[in-house]
Amino acid sequence: MKSIFISLEGPEGAGKSTVLEALLPILSEKREVVATREPGGVRIAEDIRNIVLDQKNTSLDGKTELLLFAAARRVHLLEKIKPALEAGKLVLVDRFIDSSVAYQGFAGGVEVEQVKWLNDFATDSLKPDLTLFFDLEPEEGLKRVMNNGEREKNRLDLAELDYHNKVYKGYKALLKTDSDRIVSVDASQSPEEVVKEALEVIYSRFLGEF
Amino acid sequence: MKSIFISLEGPEGAGKSTVLEALLPILSEKREVVATREPGGVRIAEDIRNIVLDQKNTSLDGKTELLLFAAARRVHLLEKIKPALEAGKLVLVDRFIDSSVAYQGFAGGVEVEQVKWLNDFATDSLKPDLTLFFDLEPEEGLKRVMNNGEREKNRLDLAELDYHNKVYKGYKALLKTDSDRIVSVDASQSPEEVVKEALEVIYSRFLGEF
Repeated sequence: MKSIFISLEGPEGAGKSTVLEALLPILSEKREVVATREPGGVRIAEDIRNIVLDQKNTSLDGKTELLLFAAARRVHLLEKIKPALEAGKLVLVDRFIDSSVAYQGFAGGVEVEQVKWLNDFATDSLKPDLTLFFDLEPEEGLKRVMNNGEREKNRLDLAELDYHNKVYKGYKALLKTDSDRIVSVDASQSPEEVVKEALEVIYSRFLGEF
Repeated sequence: MKSIFISLEGPEGAGKSTVLEALLPILSEKREVVATREPGGVRIAEDIRNIVLDQKNTSLDGKTELLLFAAARRVHLLEKIKPALEAGKLVLVDRFIDSSVAYQGFAGGVEVEQVKWLNDFATDSLKPDLTLFFDLEPEEGLKRVMNNGEREKNRLDLAELDYHNKVYKGYKALLKTDSDRIVSVDASQSPEEVVKEALEVIYSRFLGEF
């Protein structure tokens, strides 16, 4: 079987992690699946993630965040994603290159072309076969995050709505420029409906691979 | 008085740190001096440095090292170097952009043009006014490091001579392409003579500023 590489993208609160958890047992019945998340997933990458998300590190600017995320992405890719793909597995990753373009580029003020250069540098230009964009208005997403007492608030969650509107616009722009790779899923639906739509996209994109 | 930005570069064991310590009281008599080192100097940058130099992290490849050093360099620059320069001070930094070109580029196998792109990205293209290259054959430098029991061996020190030969060749190439900025100091001399030569270069380069 051919390897399959799928990334999950979207604004805060769009339910990526929940969908990933729901997809895992369903897809695992048919193929060997590795589920992971950006920017962590391996020890060194988690160390780097902790530096970035540490609420005390308020002085980190967009460029610094981007460099750290790119380093974590590369370790994660070399140690976890590439070996799984080389073994013919299905890899599901929660956030990948598009998060950098949306967060550090469109919202963080780093030039989008620079963000894309760094993505290509860190990944040796490897792109997912399919990216699911969980489409949810940023105001609705932030409401969900704030109402979820179980979820630890990290620094990025506390940034203001304006920032998240820019992130959202960034994703919308990527949907246009990378329309072959990125498919939108309506994340305003119930969790069950979102999972169903995501599965339909995956099955129709990779016919004969399940 | 105009700000002055000087970086100290060279292979392992060339005596940069010793020279910096000797220069500090001499130059401080005439100007306000900030002495710092790459990639550390500020808390977050030291955290990043510790990840890179951790001997357990043997899986870090050249690109990952480069991204982490670039992130540490940017924090260091924004929090320490730029404010000092804006206050008109003399800044002495132990390793800066050329270390990345020599270590991760020429020796680490990352394309030199990519290393330079990342340096420009991380520093907003800020370059030192003067770079002192402490010129010492790599074999001699490694001998000094290995004979120095007080100095903790870090991962880079343990890499083999071949690697350090490539680093040395990288510096020699930079001496040619950036001959206006980089000046060679003969580091095979006694420490007193090296300090004397370094001071002569500094005074003649910045006439009227001391």
